[in-house]
Amino acid sequence: MKHWDTVAVVGIGLIGGSIGLGLRRRGLAREVVGVGRRQESLQTAVQLGTVDRTTLDLAAAAAEADLIIVCTPVGRIAADVRAAAAASQRRPLITDVGSTKAQIVAELEGGLPGGARFVGSHPLAGGEKNGPAAADGDLFVGRTVVVTPTALTRPGDAADLEQLWIDLGARVVRMSPDDHDRALAATSHLPHLVAAALAAATSIDDLPLTASGWADSTRIAAGDPELWSQIFMSNRANVLAALDRYRTALDNFQQALGDGSEPQLIRLLGEAKCRRDARNERP
Amino acid sequence: MKHWDTVAVVGIGLIGGSIGLGLRRRGLAREVVGVGRRQESLQTAVQLGTVDRTTLDLAAAAAEADLIIVCTPVGRIAADVRAAAAASQRRPLITDVGSTKAQIVAELEGGLPGGARFVGSHPLAGGEKNGPAAADGDLFVGRTVVVTPTALTRPGDAADLEQLWIDLGARVVRMSPDDHDRALAATSHLPHLVAAALAAATSIDDLPLTASGWADSTRIAAGDPELWSQIFMSNRANVLAALDRYRTALDNFQQALGDGSEPQLIRLLGEAKCRRDARNERP
Repeated sequence: MKHWDTVAVVGIGLIGGSIGLGLRRRGLAREVVGVGRRQESLQTAVQLGTVDRTTLDLAAAAAEADLIIVCTPVGRIAADVRAAAAASQRRPLITDVGSTKAQIVAELEGGLPGGARFVGSHPLAGGEKNGPAAADGDLFVGRTVVVTPTALTRPGDAADLEQLWIDLGARVVRMSPDDHDRALAATSHLPHLVAAALAAATSIDDLPLTASGWADSTRIAAGDPELWSQIFMSNRANVLAALDRYRTALDNFQQALGDGSEPQLIRLLGEAKCRRDARNERP
Repeated sequence: MKHWDTVAVVGIGLIGGSIGLGLRRRGLAREVVGVGRRQESLQTAVQLGTVDRTTLDLAAAAAEADLIIVCTPVGRIAADVRAAAAASQRRPLITDVGSTKAQIVAELEGGLPGGARFVGSHPLAGGEKNGPAAADGDLFVGRTVVVTPTALTRPGDAADLEQLWIDLGARVVRMSPDDHDRALAATSHLPHLVAAALAAATSIDDLPLTASGWADSTRIAAGDPELWSQIFMSNRANVLAALDRYRTALDNFQQALGDGSEPQLIRLLGEAKCRRDARNERP
């Protein structure tokens, strides 16, 4: 276990709030300071005990922190990290929780003032709920967190960051930012696009005839459009490539269906089932 | 409430077993006879109390029944209904629970021996679990069941069948077989195809980086390939038409992503979210 002195959590929604709660419950920090933009969210966070105290002033929180975790939307992460670094006084380690990594890491690494260093993180956790009230101190237990150090990262910083996530209960996978973005395009960003297209293609009149299959398949399409458009914009090339591979799979089904070939349909559905079932077999 | 004398349930997996259990728990029949093809499943069904007794002999069960519910795979329903009607002696009402209706109803209605009449049903219920052990007497409570009478259906038969499902706790929607198949192509069959293509397009190496979004979006792809290929084959034209509409929705996302147009992405994601959210608002 690694003990931190003052941790600043910037953005205290589901992920930020859960980090704060997890740190506090496990005694991983002397003090957790929550930084937000709306007084109301800050009050909720304090009331729920997700942070020790809060502030609207990112610079003030950054000045006293030795660890800064930026949990703002993908489109704002680089600017928030730069602002935190500029105000820092304790040579902090800074990380984020954004769903894309290559663009953010390229913008930030090696070029921060105040002796601050940035190493990217992406916890594969979340859910339908949002906001500080959804915070869960065990959100990361058993979940995968990708950490994306590069050749410019100090080995000690990568190790400290990995220890943080392990201390919060997660399983850590180390990848390059590019490998992360390529993989997540297929496992997270494409599924979102596919779900959104499926929801959009369903007529309002047919909604009463949807059941759990449709509901599950489209669940992620209920995500915030602005947050997700930032993710897509930040990982465009990889998502377009994943979409191409998906369309090929779709073509195969269309061909089998158009041909009326039951053996071919059974084969394709069997391959898909194998892939789906293989997911449940992994540890 | 309508009380039946002897109900034969042909096929006692999740749906058939749940019907048997629901009938018995609510006292809707004097006796429920389960018909299966494997002695093992029949034993499980009796042990769990989903039926009063069982037989491997469809004809024997059909002979004494005044209601016959055929819960076999789509590709076998018409043959099983014809065999049941041929053996019937009590002018039974016969229904099914198949996921497609037009082909089955066209093959069966108006042409059955023994004074038997067929009216189609499709309960929009199910789940990941399967087999007689998954039976749930409240499976249909609050769920939608589509009943598909036609101009050839006796009004009394349609009313009796609707009452059966209402007595099991369901909300009944009456549609023509064609309207049912067109709607379900969009709300159930296309989602299955989309989920299967998504699972198939995901590389084995990337599976460890999947989280709840991928898992939800691909859940139905774990369904039985043979059962689903029968459903697709029985509703080919409608599924192909639904797939065309889906591909148009996918094209819109691809275009916005290719153009790098964030406003366009936000608009498309917002429309999809509205459609998804509208589903939760319906009663």
